[in-house]
Amino acid sequence: MSETTEVRAGALDVLGWTCPAPLRNQPRVVMGHGGGGAMSAELVEHLFLPAFGGPDLAGTVDAAALELGGARLAFSTDSFVVRPLFFPGGSIGDLAVNGTVNDLAMSGARPAYLSCGFILEEGVELAVVQRVAEALGAAARTAGVEVVTGDTKVVEAGHGDGIFINTSGIGLIPHGVDLRPQRVVPGDVVIVSGPVGVHGVAIMSVREGLEFGVEIESDCAPLAGLVEAMLAVTEDLHVLRDPTRGGLAAALNEIASASGTGVVVQERAVPVPAAVANACAVLGLDPMYVANEGKLVAFVPREHADAVLAAMRAHPLGREAAVIGEAVEAHPGMVVARTGLGGTRVVDMPLGEQLPRIC
Amino acid sequence: MSETTEVRAGALDVLGWTCPAPLRNQPRVVMGHGGGGAMSAELVEHLFLPAFGGPDLAGTVDAAALELGGARLAFSTDSFVVRPLFFPGGSIGDLAVNGTVNDLAMSGARPAYLSCGFILEEGVELAVVQRVAEALGAAARTAGVEVVTGDTKVVEAGHGDGIFINTSGIGLIPHGVDLRPQRVVPGDVVIVSGPVGVHGVAIMSVREGLEFGVEIESDCAPLAGLVEAMLAVTEDLHVLRDPTRGGLAAALNEIASASGTGVVVQERAVPVPAAVANACAVLGLDPMYVANEGKLVAFVPREHADAVLAAMRAHPLGREAAVIGEAVEAHPGMVVARTGLGGTRVVDMPLGEQLPRIC
Repeated sequence: MSETTEVRAGALDVLGWTCPAPLRNQPRVVMGHGGGGAMSAELVEHLFLPAFGGPDLAGTVDAAALELGGARLAFSTDSFVVRPLFFPGGSIGDLAVNGTVNDLAMSGARPAYLSCGFILEEGVELAVVQRVAEALGAAARTAGVEVVTGDTKVVEAGHGDGIFINTSGIGLIPHGVDLRPQRVVPGDVVIVSGPVGVHGVAIMSVREGLEFGVEIESDCAPLAGLVEAMLAVTEDLHVLRDPTRGGLAAALNEIASASGTGVVVQERAVPVPAAVANACAVLGLDPMYVANEGKLVAFVPREHADAVLAAMRAHPLGREAAVIGEAVEAHPGMVVARTGLGGTRVVDMPLGEQLPRIC
Repeated sequence: MSETTEVRAGALDVLGWTCPAPLRNQPRVVMGHGGGGAMSAELVEHLFLPAFGGPDLAGTVDAAALELGGARLAFSTDSFVVRPLFFPGGSIGDLAVNGTVNDLAMSGARPAYLSCGFILEEGVELAVVQRVAEALGAAARTAGVEVVTGDTKVVEAGHGDGIFINTSGIGLIPHGVDLRPQRVVPGDVVIVSGPVGVHGVAIMSVREGLEFGVEIESDCAPLAGLVEAMLAVTEDLHVLRDPTRGGLAAALNEIASASGTGVVVQERAVPVPAAVANACAVLGLDPMYVANEGKLVAFVPREHADAVLAAMRAHPLGREAAVIGEAVEAHPGMVVARTGLGGTRVVDMPLGEQLPRIC
């Protein structure tokens, strides 16, 4: 795991990030291909996109923005393979709703409809399926979306892992809203909606039976309401991203890379709960790389930053929102952290999988 | 498997179909829950829909019809777990496109955009993933749809089965088109677009290493063009269905049940290729219950039936279209076949899984 959290201090002259290995040197799928880091991006860029023959959208958006029948739609999909199915603060059912709802919300869309595809493993207790489905239904009601179409497949025992869920979602993008990393400019203020690293640590604690003094609950939550509150201040937000797999580090690197600006983060300004910090110290993890399921990071024009921050803090899911950095002209495409001691370090794109199957 | 193909001759006085067992008597998921028959429907009706708290759409539509931003949209999802990944006439990539495209087309929609979620098993060769992705891309181009958003997850070796794919799709429903089983009325003519049973037999032949004299290729194909040709004759088609899992028998039973009309099928009129008939005889299957992936069944007002049939036969995917029966007032909700010998038999809803993992 060390490669994903490695610190390369003082490497500011290394302005580009180099693809660690072309796909042809990697003959088989490894866990890292699903980690939301560089290997995932590589698989999309070098294998899926050429095969699909579509536009090069790698790493730029969580949801596609489409025109159909005169409507401006956001369309997104996510599969969920989290282990265990139930964890402190949520379940695969909650994740399946909030993950897709949040991907839609990050494009500024109002999430409206979800599809839901279950792949069940033969032998799973129907009572478990029911608990998951009920959690999913409750999460959908909380998020204000409707599950309108679905599908169920069953695979033989030993060929699946209990329950996998795919949700896809459609939402409506209000006119005037245009959230894309390409809109980021130097001077933009970087705001995170609350403490980071909670979801990943919550999963690890229950999976490994670890105790960190207090039970850490996942932050899994639907963010469309928070986004709406932010857009009510100004439609001119530049980009939003929910830092899930790969954490804040992956989200900021994707934005830096796609926008061609540099990003500077004030390390001390990043809110990390004490319990998460302790757990990360024990596990050898960097909270910047740990997944969140109820947080967003926003790049906001400087003139609107105070008002947007105030609006976020007035929302239940943004009470601990904080300015953590800014977009800069220096080191385009690269994320740099100013450490508490006055030094700097490069915040790399994670390579592969730090915590497998956390969503 | 016998329960899925059982013939109950002369049971016309049995007008209702009885749910074989409430879910509470079935503690665990079995293969039949994914078979597209009665057990699948039961799981949706008694577990998923109550949990989701949505409208009761069980068994009535393949795609949801929605209003969003003034557009009339169709939205559908399907997961694909077929074994093997490649088979005569197609692959999981082709199925993943055509399955969802066809679900959209059955609502009369013009399919436009697909999402694509891969669940990969650690250790799968990337060359295999690439072949599948290329097949998927080629199928999308053939079907005239664009893959616009995606997701990749990886599960540990032994916790998946190579490659699972979910696709969801969005299409635009033209104004005036309203395809629903509830629109079926006695007198409607039942038309099938071509020979049935081909896909399921193609999968079985390669999976079991069986030889049936000639290689049987899957009929996997996108049907939106054929539907467009039919709608060009009249917008007043009543319902379309692609008879996939559970075959023609399941599709007709779903329509009969949701429409509250009876359906009579002339057994000799149902086109069954000799190779499929032979294979079914060897395997103890009924072609009416075997899956298709490039066929549709249409309920058409009698006054339009000749013209719709002619339009279908003029299309490459409908050349062997045939009238196979009609909707009737008698035995509402029940499908009955007139046999070649002048007798009648009830065509039951299949219970569970006849051929597991054929899509």
